[in-house]
Amino acid sequence: MNIQAEELNKTLQEVNPALFDMLSERGKAIFFPKKGILGQSAEAKGTTINATIGAAIEDDNSPMRLKSISKNLNIDASKAFPYAPSFGRPDIRARWKEMIYQKNPALGTAPISLPIVTNALTHGISMAGYMFANPGDEVLVPSLFWGNYNLTFINAYNAKIEPYNLFKDNGLDIEAMSAELMSEGDKKILLLNFPNNPTGYSPTVNEMKEIVASVEKAANAGKKVVVICDDAYFGLVFEEGIETQSPFAWLANLHENVLAVKVDGPTKEDYVWGFRVGFITYGIKGGTEELYSALENKTAGAVRGNISNASNLSQSLLLEAFDSPTYKEEKKEKFDILNSRYKAVKEVLKDPKYAEFFKPLPYNSGYFMCVELKEGIDANNVRQLLIEKYSIGVISLNNLLRLAFSAVAAKDVPTLFEGIHSACKELANR
Amino acid sequence: MNIQAEELNKTLQEVNPALFDMLSERGKAIFFPKKGILGQSAEAKGTTINATIGAAIEDDNSPMRLKSISKNLNIDASKAFPYAPSFGRPDIRARWKEMIYQKNPALGTAPISLPIVTNALTHGISMAGYMFANPGDEVLVPSLFWGNYNLTFINAYNAKIEPYNLFKDNGLDIEAMSAELMSEGDKKILLLNFPNNPTGYSPTVNEMKEIVASVEKAANAGKKVVVICDDAYFGLVFEEGIETQSPFAWLANLHENVLAVKVDGPTKEDYVWGFRVGFITYGIKGGTEELYSALENKTAGAVRGNISNASNLSQSLLLEAFDSPTYKEEKKEKFDILNSRYKAVKEVLKDPKYAEFFKPLPYNSGYFMCVELKEGIDANNVRQLLIEKYSIGVISLNNLLRLAFSAVAAKDVPTLFEGIHSACKELANR
Repeated sequence: MNIQAEELNKTLQEVNPALFDMLSERGKAIFFPKKGILGQSAEAKGTTINATIGAAIEDDNSPMRLKSISKNLNIDASKAFPYAPSFGRPDIRARWKEMIYQKNPALGTAPISLPIVTNALTHGISMAGYMFANPGDEVLVPSLFWGNYNLTFINAYNAKIEPYNLFKDNGLDIEAMSAELMSEGDKKILLLNFPNNPTGYSPTVNEMKEIVASVEKAANAGKKVVVICDDAYFGLVFEEGIETQSPFAWLANLHENVLAVKVDGPTKEDYVWGFRVGFITYGIKGGTEELYSALENKTAGAVRGNISNASNLSQSLLLEAFDSPTYKEEKKEKFDILNSRYKAVKEVLKDPKYAEFFKPLPYNSGYFMCVELKEGIDANNVRQLLIEKYSIGVISLNNLLRLAFSAVAAKDVPTLFEGIHSACKELANR
Repeated sequence: MNIQAEELNKTLQEVNPALFDMLSERGKAIFFPKKGILGQSAEAKGTTINATIGAAIEDDNSPMRLKSISKNLNIDASKAFPYAPSFGRPDIRARWKEMIYQKNPALGTAPISLPIVTNALTHGISMAGYMFANPGDEVLVPSLFWGNYNLTFINAYNAKIEPYNLFKDNGLDIEAMSAELMSEGDKKILLLNFPNNPTGYSPTVNEMKEIVASVEKAANAGKKVVVICDDAYFGLVFEEGIETQSPFAWLANLHENVLAVKVDGPTKEDYVWGFRVGFITYGIKGGTEELYSALENKTAGAVRGNISNASNLSQSLLLEAFDSPTYKEEKKEKFDILNSRYKAVKEVLKDPKYAEFFKPLPYNSGYFMCVELKEGIDANNVRQLLIEKYSIGVISLNNLLRLAFSAVAAKDVPTLFEGIHSACKELANR
């Protein structure tokens, strides 16, 4: 094993041996190469003649660039064209960390790591898999989960996906989750995704407490628990009494046996799906600066070997928006639009006639909601009929339809459900 | 194994069983999930009410976006904010393929795959590792190679790096490379990186012929050879008689046992280090549309599980530049600047006094050149003295200094070598 990896591992073992045991073999071996070219480049920073950098510089020391590209950008060339560090831009990392505390007051002043920038959230989840999932390890996910977890964990790392039942009596089946956490095996990887994709469900304040208690119970029983919080749809909670903070806020300082891993980013929070910026952030009780630094170095090493670094251009555009005086107001405006669509769905579904063919699964947040079709109606047939006859697009998942109300104007919501109702009726009568 | 992966594998086995054997276990199992959410979204394209998409759309059907971000972009919102496909934007894929043919006339009309977009070149190499490198597989690299290959192949995929001697008698040691190709084992993964990082060497026209002949010899002997062409510095050749085309041009249609994998992109070709766009493209003799489609689907599946997709914004900005009438002229201007720096290095090194302390390794292209220090002079000491006393930054690699002339104005080149000379002199006399 490389000596730089060994040094990081020593730090982790000294501060928290349980955390070291949570790492995959790959996670144990990875490090950010500080002693090679990158370290030497860092040492040469500020030299008059700097021949270390693998980039081209104009004679005036600005980044070399083509006018056909720069003319379309209203930001400084130095923030768009050069490489960003594998760790991410230091300024956006600091700012995002500050924003994590602001958005999650339950964190208090608990120390957490500085976020590492990823190529948006899928990549954050992939890097969590790199760090923690050995071949054969089970990743505990709810029974309704984002299908791409399969490619991310099973195909890439040869891990297993172990689903637990998501809903019971119109709320979360936390017992099912807890049973998986308490089952055989010392190491547990739990994936929490709220608001959930595909259902658009977030836990109530009480359910969040039960989730946290279940994790604590497992930790007290000696389990070493990695909790990956996929916070893709963070911030989009539309009802009172629903938890508005990430599970990370409650888990990051819970127990020495619990590593909370927050995977988040502006993709949905700030409506930049095509920008590809995300973050991965760690929190563990008793986490010291050295411990977090070791985790950051390992994660940045994984990023370096996989994508080298994420878009500097995107990071810079986002940071500028975060610093804009109208940022909060602009976000509020978009939230209100999504909220109005959510409310339109709630309103329309008050009509009891729909219950004849389908009923909604619990939903209160995010982009999506699902309806469960009455037995005997094939969801895929409904989906196809909706396209052909009604020019309506929905996703079918087994006996469910997933509806992205994020993409439907409030005024069109009644037409959407009328269409589904008619299609179901037609198919039921065939 | 997923049925969609099996279908792709069947196609590969039918068209070219040797190619199927080149895939890693991971490469065999991967597929692009066409039958799930993504396939259903595709089917719903063009519907009046489209509730399939995991994105937010304004009531006017434009992408939801914040003004604080969009004000800094002079391109259409639809080309910046929504997701790009995991395969990459269809328009830039088609354009890049067309440009590969233009830049590599030796390809003729040989069919090659449509390039898959990656998060720049490191990610392209990482995806090649995903597709072809099993744990324990050797990746053949020259003895002077980019250190990040270690993280990409060893750390991520548990493969091995097997270096062969790079230089012999001021040219390439092609015998050494050939010996590795002919050594025990049926499957060979060869990595070619021209212009080479760190040396800035590209093969002469004759050396390229010998390289191709060596690969052909191995293929004729029954070896199944995956040749990964890391074309990061493509296009920057500064001398007559040096091969200006990628090895891919000569290998893509060479032999049924040779899969040429081109990893390239605009990062250095178009001076956009921070944009993170690259491409991975395949060529094999007898490659049919079905075969290439199967490889593209597998690669896009790997991309989907790893990063989901690459920056739409960056792809769109680049495509617009490619289509600009001044694009070629702008590139020529930048090439000329780099060429003038290269020429300045050649000129300065004509002075015989430098031979007292160092001599250049062969170089003719790219961003870099290396000097080998006389025995007894420690390169790292030289490097540190250069920073402290001369404000000059260079990279030390064992007994070499790597100099990025790409980052040094031609007028500063004499000062750079004067400084190195003085530092060497001082250390030699200590």
